[in-house]
Amino acid sequence: MGTPFKLGLCQMTVEKDKDANLRRAAEFVRQAAGQGCRIIALPEMFNCPYNKNLFPHYAECFPGGKTTNLLSSLAKEYQVVLAGGSVPEQYGDIYYNTSFIFGPDGNLLGRHRKIHLFDVDLPGGLSFKESDTLHAGNIPTVVDTAFGKIGVCICYDIRFPELLRYMTLQGAKLILVPAAFNIVTGPAHWELCMKSRAVDNQVFVAAISPARNEKGTYKAWGHSMVADPWGDVLAEAGEGDEVLCVDIDPVRIGDVSKKLPLLKHRRTDLYTIEWLRQT
Amino acid sequence: MGTPFKLGLCQMTVEKDKDANLRRAAEFVRQAAGQGCRIIALPEMFNCPYNKNLFPHYAECFPGGKTTNLLSSLAKEYQVVLAGGSVPEQYGDIYYNTSFIFGPDGNLLGRHRKIHLFDVDLPGGLSFKESDTLHAGNIPTVVDTAFGKIGVCICYDIRFPELLRYMTLQGAKLILVPAAFNIVTGPAHWELCMKSRAVDNQVFVAAISPARNEKGTYKAWGHSMVADPWGDVLAEAGEGDEVLCVDIDPVRIGDVSKKLPLLKHRRTDLYTIEWLRQT
Repeated sequence: MGTPFKLGLCQMTVEKDKDANLRRAAEFVRQAAGQGCRIIALPEMFNCPYNKNLFPHYAECFPGGKTTNLLSSLAKEYQVVLAGGSVPEQYGDIYYNTSFIFGPDGNLLGRHRKIHLFDVDLPGGLSFKESDTLHAGNIPTVVDTAFGKIGVCICYDIRFPELLRYMTLQGAKLILVPAAFNIVTGPAHWELCMKSRAVDNQVFVAAISPARNEKGTYKAWGHSMVADPWGDVLAEAGEGDEVLCVDIDPVRIGDVSKKLPLLKHRRTDLYTIEWLRQT
Repeated sequence: MGTPFKLGLCQMTVEKDKDANLRRAAEFVRQAAGQGCRIIALPEMFNCPYNKNLFPHYAECFPGGKTTNLLSSLAKEYQVVLAGGSVPEQYGDIYYNTSFIFGPDGNLLGRHRKIHLFDVDLPGGLSFKESDTLHAGNIPTVVDTAFGKIGVCICYDIRFPELLRYMTLQGAKLILVPAAFNIVTGPAHWELCMKSRAVDNQVFVAAISPARNEKGTYKAWGHSMVADPWGDVLAEAGEGDEVLCVDIDPVRIGDVSKKLPLLKHRRTDLYTIEWLRQT
């Protein structure tokens, strides 16, 4: 990463009407671009309510899907890197929770399929089983941009330090995390997860949540945020609709790693993290 | 881990007088045992000021050193597991930052030699270079006790998620971290490190600091604490001398991992952490 840039996080309400979601996403991206953001990110499942039974019905194929066509054209129109949060992707007869990332020329930079599916049984009757309708991806995603390498993972993926470490070792300096934590895991772990991954790996971590939709069946935590490599929270949203524009100065990475050279101090003679599959 | 037990953290002042440090350690262990603690832990470098130039002068060999003899006899006298914080260990003509752990029979259960040496250059002129006088250990330490498996690592070791994950996969349910964070890294990262390792690995993490010695050249952070597997802080000390007794209920591990099965959801088909050396 070289020069400073503005990062835009679009914390938008997601509702049942897919076209309304796409219109809102386009409007939020327009606002972020208007404020000078050069990398813009949307939340997890931004075109579809977070409901496993709806994923197949909202899913689209790539290329050719309405949502990815829109993302590509927005990236090109505003000349930005656009990390499309995530959407249900159809691939043959299976479905993924997928983040499509487009470059300023409108071409696909990368595609992250959520690796760790959210199958949990939380207090207060909050149960989810993504694996009922989704398949899991197998590949870490680090894309090259004019601003340096960017890693992307989705929500529950952030819980697994191996993945974040691997993306860091692949050169990621900023990790985008479209994520819909809820009102149980959010207050307990949202900030902890984002800050600790940033500190451990000496990268910027940006988490992008849907806005809290009190009428929806799934209540997202909100609180989209950016943690810097020292763990300082550079900015944090509330719970409602919000475009959060955050100045990112890559110099911070060198400053922190010079003081506290964590990555240099890894005992690579003692332990190693290997990625076992390439497809 | 089976039945609940009390864990005692001895946040004690460390001064130049080694014998005074040993007397204080013995008194703190006596107090913790008197309150019913069955596992008791001392802080990093509890018999020696945290100063790289002093380590060789305070160092002792095992067996036969005055400090480890004391720890062994205290463990036996009070019938407790005693994790002896850490001390400078002499081994031939080299030195380690070592934690000696004794069982209720007075025998050594394990010995952890700090794996990651603290060589940093922090803001405010706080510089340290442990590697000037110390060698690094190479082996993760997990010991068997009547209360289950316990991992031990020392201070800067906690910064490296690979080590904590490895100890967890070796069966550790409680990880003891004798640690002397300072007044720069303490407020920034102490609680973040302890809580995030506890949450990621669904273990109890207990950190034991020296008390803040305002007269000393190194000002430890204090704030000895225990985080449970959900990241809740069960207890936290202030900055002065304090014996912190904390009820540990191992049932909490099962409760949390049933709700949020992080360890089960690790993609062991995709990534693995290997330990490359056994000596």
